[in-house]
Amino acid sequence: MKALYFDGEKAVYREDMPIPVCGEGQSLIRIMLADICSTDREILKGYRPDFRGIMGHEFVGEVVESPDASLVGKIVVGEINEGCGKCIYCRTGREKHCLTRKTPGMSKDGCFAEYMALATHLIHIVPEGLAPEQAVFTEPLAAALEITKQVHIDPALNAAVIGDGRLAFMIAQVLALTGIDLTVIGKHPEKLKLFEPFAKTTLLSDYCEGDGYRSLSAEECFEYVVEASGNESGIHLAMHIIRKMGTIILKSTYAGSAHLDLSLIPVNEITVVGSRCGPFEPALKLLKEGKVYFSTVDLYNLKDFEKAFSSHAFKAGFSFERS
Amino acid sequence: MKALYFDGEKAVYREDMPIPVCGEGQSLIRIMLADICSTDREILKGYRPDFRGIMGHEFVGEVVESPDASLVGKIVVGEINEGCGKCIYCRTGREKHCLTRKTPGMSKDGCFAEYMALATHLIHIVPEGLAPEQAVFTEPLAAALEITKQVHIDPALNAAVIGDGRLAFMIAQVLALTGIDLTVIGKHPEKLKLFEPFAKTTLLSDYCEGDGYRSLSAEECFEYVVEASGNESGIHLAMHIIRKMGTIILKSTYAGSAHLDLSLIPVNEITVVGSRCGPFEPALKLLKEGKVYFSTVDLYNLKDFEKAFSSHAFKAGFSFERS
Repeated sequence: MKALYFDGEKAVYREDMPIPVCGEGQSLIRIMLADICSTDREILKGYRPDFRGIMGHEFVGEVVESPDASLVGKIVVGEINEGCGKCIYCRTGREKHCLTRKTPGMSKDGCFAEYMALATHLIHIVPEGLAPEQAVFTEPLAAALEITKQVHIDPALNAAVIGDGRLAFMIAQVLALTGIDLTVIGKHPEKLKLFEPFAKTTLLSDYCEGDGYRSLSAEECFEYVVEASGNESGIHLAMHIIRKMGTIILKSTYAGSAHLDLSLIPVNEITVVGSRCGPFEPALKLLKEGKVYFSTVDLYNLKDFEKAFSSHAFKAGFSFERS
Repeated sequence: MKALYFDGEKAVYREDMPIPVCGEGQSLIRIMLADICSTDREILKGYRPDFRGIMGHEFVGEVVESPDASLVGKIVVGEINEGCGKCIYCRTGREKHCLTRKTPGMSKDGCFAEYMALATHLIHIVPEGLAPEQAVFTEPLAAALEITKQVHIDPALNAAVIGDGRLAFMIAQVLALTGIDLTVIGKHPEKLKLFEPFAKTTLLSDYCEGDGYRSLSAEECFEYVVEASGNESGIHLAMHIIRKMGTIILKSTYAGSAHLDLSLIPVNEITVVGSRCGPFEPALKLLKEGKVYFSTVDLYNLKDFEKAFSSHAFKAGFSFERS
């Protein structure tokens, strides 16, 4: 079959990969659409130096083989963390943190291919009427919903999202559904425009003065701040604009380590919540009901992967539809 | 009256200080006992360079003058943060974070004196039968109870306290009351002995290997870790021993800034909660019922303040009882 293979250094387009054989409890999925996540780009930069295999982890596909006969023929999406089932994390609802978990495109063969095998319990059926081009946003939208799973958002307060990229866009849409007074802080006026239907927008420069940040009154600060800029500077801004006893949610994973005045956390009784993969079912429900919206994926043939990886579209991916 | 005055550089014993005159809403308290908190020692090291005035903020006293007649003659303790009453923090139950708050011994005259004036709404009556020598622990015990106010402690899980000093001792006693499987990690075998009636104890060195920490299994890690060592290294140990999706509570305020791999917070979905002053009423209740216990305060005359400050007792303080 056709697949995009990571050889430890670069992505290689191959047509000679075998169709996967399902292990115990696995289903075989014919991939229809697969989209590129920033993690895939990080893998090309060396994020997972030991990984060799088919890339990709966000997809929509059709189940063609499964131990659960009711799934065969269904259009599905899939969670990405397959745990051992035995350790303390798997036994306590934290399969995604299993130390020996397998993740498509990171530690097992992924979905940038015509077929992928996946643990059946990780599969979620796409509701009828939800187009694959929107369903493909389930995994990143679920990551945004992890925030409202972890943290009670009081809609009578206020919140800021730092960042104006794709992750920030999903998070801001989810927070906007609470009705909270929402501000998005970004660097790019043209990207911030996309947020205007559901949030106030501000340029990062509005918070700057000289080499640092301008001093803010308590009223100008926020009860919740979500750091989704992917920049180390984002955490410093978050610490500056958070109200005392407020909650900072860290969504970005930083490459390096940050130098932070940690004394501010106890002194101001700040809560910092790390937030990652989230629940699929509410994501599918919101997408199906049209409560959140994302522009469609910019689709490429797998062999044009270089174009896809360098696309500036909101989201780029691959189409495997038989044509 | 007699008082211990901070002149910007050092503590000065004086007998010429005027008895305070109550402002609007204030009560006058005759101090019976006042104890030394580590913050008082930090003030001598330059923690509040702009402060000039009477030191001290932990006390037990008798109300001698008050707009609330029912308080006169009562033995009381007092909260330490007097807000402006008007700002967003004061209006939303966060008076202790008011940006213009006044704090005895830090930004207004404190309790190392025969009398102190305090906002009446900050006063709490000591229940009958609770000795002043125990009631004086209300403020630090309240700070320990701030943890259970902020964080739901699931008693079926496990917790670690890093530190074996006074703060750690209060925190560990409060956590032990939940019934949780509790481990205290300290450096001093003789101090750790005090924790043995209600916690497992471990030497910090048990977690070390070479220049770093030894690798731990998920089972060896903890769902809750309270950093109460007062050392920057404590936060690094906390990040090492916390389970994924666990909660770290920072009680220590650090002098400097720490270099931390912040990517671990989102990747492992860690929550970090800063925690400071807490609720007085449950502290008074637990002290009165004998559910927590602290050895009594090592008491000095005010003029022997140098001895008191250098005491190695669990807690040292001053007695103002007429003798």
